[in-house]
Amino acid sequence: MQLNNIPMCSKVVVSELFSDAAVCGKMDSKVDQRSLSCSSPVYVHNPHLDVLKEDILYHLGLGTATHDLQAMFGDVKFVCVGGSAWRMKSFIEYIAAELGMEDPKSEYPNICDGTDRYAMYKVGPVLSVSHGMGIPSIAIMLHELIKLLHHARCTDVTIIRIGTSGGIGLEPGTVVVTKQSMDATFLPRFEQVILGKTVVYNTDLDQSLAEELLQCSKELSQFETVLGNTMCSLDFYEGQARLDGAFCSYTEKDKQDYLIKASEAGVCNIEMESSVFAAMCKLSGLRAAVVCVTLLDRLKGDQLTGSHEVLHKFQEYPQKLVGYYIKRQLKAKAGGS
Amino acid sequence: MQLNNIPMCSKVVVSELFSDAAVCGKMDSKVDQRSLSCSSPVYVHNPHLDVLKEDILYHLGLGTATHDLQAMFGDVKFVCVGGSAWRMKSFIEYIAAELGMEDPKSEYPNICDGTDRYAMYKVGPVLSVSHGMGIPSIAIMLHELIKLLHHARCTDVTIIRIGTSGGIGLEPGTVVVTKQSMDATFLPRFEQVILGKTVVYNTDLDQSLAEELLQCSKELSQFETVLGNTMCSLDFYEGQARLDGAFCSYTEKDKQDYLIKASEAGVCNIEMESSVFAAMCKLSGLRAAVVCVTLLDRLKGDQLTGSHEVLHKFQEYPQKLVGYYIKRQLKAKAGGS
Repeated sequence: MQLNNIPMCSKVVVSELFSDAAVCGKMDSKVDQRSLSCSSPVYVHNPHLDVLKEDILYHLGLGTATHDLQAMFGDVKFVCVGGSAWRMKSFIEYIAAELGMEDPKSEYPNICDGTDRYAMYKVGPVLSVSHGMGIPSIAIMLHELIKLLHHARCTDVTIIRIGTSGGIGLEPGTVVVTKQSMDATFLPRFEQVILGKTVVYNTDLDQSLAEELLQCSKELSQFETVLGNTMCSLDFYEGQARLDGAFCSYTEKDKQDYLIKASEAGVCNIEMESSVFAAMCKLSGLRAAVVCVTLLDRLKGDQLTGSHEVLHKFQEYPQKLVGYYIKRQLKAKAGGS
Repeated sequence: MQLNNIPMCSKVVVSELFSDAAVCGKMDSKVDQRSLSCSSPVYVHNPHLDVLKEDILYHLGLGTATHDLQAMFGDVKFVCVGGSAWRMKSFIEYIAAELGMEDPKSEYPNICDGTDRYAMYKVGPVLSVSHGMGIPSIAIMLHELIKLLHHARCTDVTIIRIGTSGGIGLEPGTVVVTKQSMDATFLPRFEQVILGKTVVYNTDLDQSLAEELLQCSKELSQFETVLGNTMCSLDFYEGQARLDGAFCSYTEKDKQDYLIKASEAGVCNIEMESSVFAAMCKLSGLRAAVVCVTLLDRLKGDQLTGSHEVLHKFQEYPQKLVGYYIKRQLKAKAGGS
């Protein structure tokens, strides 16, 4: 079958469609009722939700008719998300200890225990949620998380993805705070097909939050942290120019040339979720950052040959950095109030 | 930022690039050594694998240096894959009972217990593997599964995805066996970006296997099964024209028009993994089918309002159908040998 002459869908840009809503102070009538001060709510942009009798957050195993979401989540100020359910459980244990909010029995129940799609844990103002691997998987979780935060009437929420990635020209174990998320052609955009038409979103992240995280890393002084662009791929193997997938039709030189081009575009690391994360968080008015540790230098190899202990240690770096940031923010708030 | 004038990547078609390899009898020199009869091996297409000292299947927690893959998996003839780890464990329990191969202690250990990315179970010639949600997540698993089957020197493997989906104009609980997997513009193709260039694959599935599965459903006579096209989406909400995501900028009428267009293109149901599954299985010479139950009729709604019991019962239908098929195949083989 010949498919190469199929015309592409027409394209529209929505990067500015909802921009008003993301600016504190410009709020729609619905929001006005619950944010009389300049606190920033979590926005949904969907008039159809108003007429739903109940909203079932199917993949989280939660819903407005079955759970009192405001009572359960109304105090959330920080959401940390990551691919692995194990890692997000370990994060909640870590942050509980850091904030002096440990459960005496060390029990942190999975709030999404009615489903195995995602796992969710909460300690005080911190929510920790897993999102699986890849753009579609994190997008399902984010749609339902944003609705959850909206139904719970949360305000001033910061969301940080803590993940793993492949680095380009960085010592393994380096942490990258993302400046812009780029696609596989090194453009800062996320494309989605809606009703058969391609829609393009920009992938800006909160620059002041990124700077604050860099500053935190300096204060912590336990590992190297850099600010750079992150390439977001739809595939782990060929999509990231790996030579070790089941299929590969290019050479080592082709791979190196591609990664060097990425590096020239400011790409420091490659992962699989940042673009839709940046786009959706921006639309919903969430202050967002992406903090990923590099597990290997892709210029030197493709396979994760590091020992279990070393890889495990590396995966703790984003947790430590974000834990430090949250602790500092809460301390500053307590001092200021 | 204006992004709508960005030119698209050039396109190449690889649907026939590896077609020789998928035909029994046309084997490359490496394969010749281990398949002197006309049994069909599982193909990788990657010369770089030959020079790897060991192959670490990172997301499965397995590897050629740490596991005797041929001893562990050499007898596999049927692989069933599905999104949820719970469902794939329940499938292995079901098939064990059907084949009279129950573990007396009812213990089916997770072979991938060193990681929480995927879960894998095995009973006799049947392997059951979870793949998470969305194209990137199943693609990682398939790359590593295909390499696993290759390293294990498996032959004549049939692979079936058993999943859930949204139906179009079908009674909830109807099972759809996929004829062709289509993208969001109703074309039978899967696009992937490799080294920054878009590559297009076709998404044909094994038609004779699909017909056999339909015949099995007639014999079983427990639920309705149809043969039809399946739309594979990168998103659960806007990508499937749902009205209940965090964002939605179209009307109920726009949604209905889109779903009716899909229906006119032969689309019976919508899910999120079939296109890359079809493309990768075809490239690797695996006989492949997609069998998904519809949990709701998308023309009538978007939310999964069915009771837990009803949804659970529906999810058993693909398991029952595929279990019946495997049992019949093994019986025929035993009778013929």
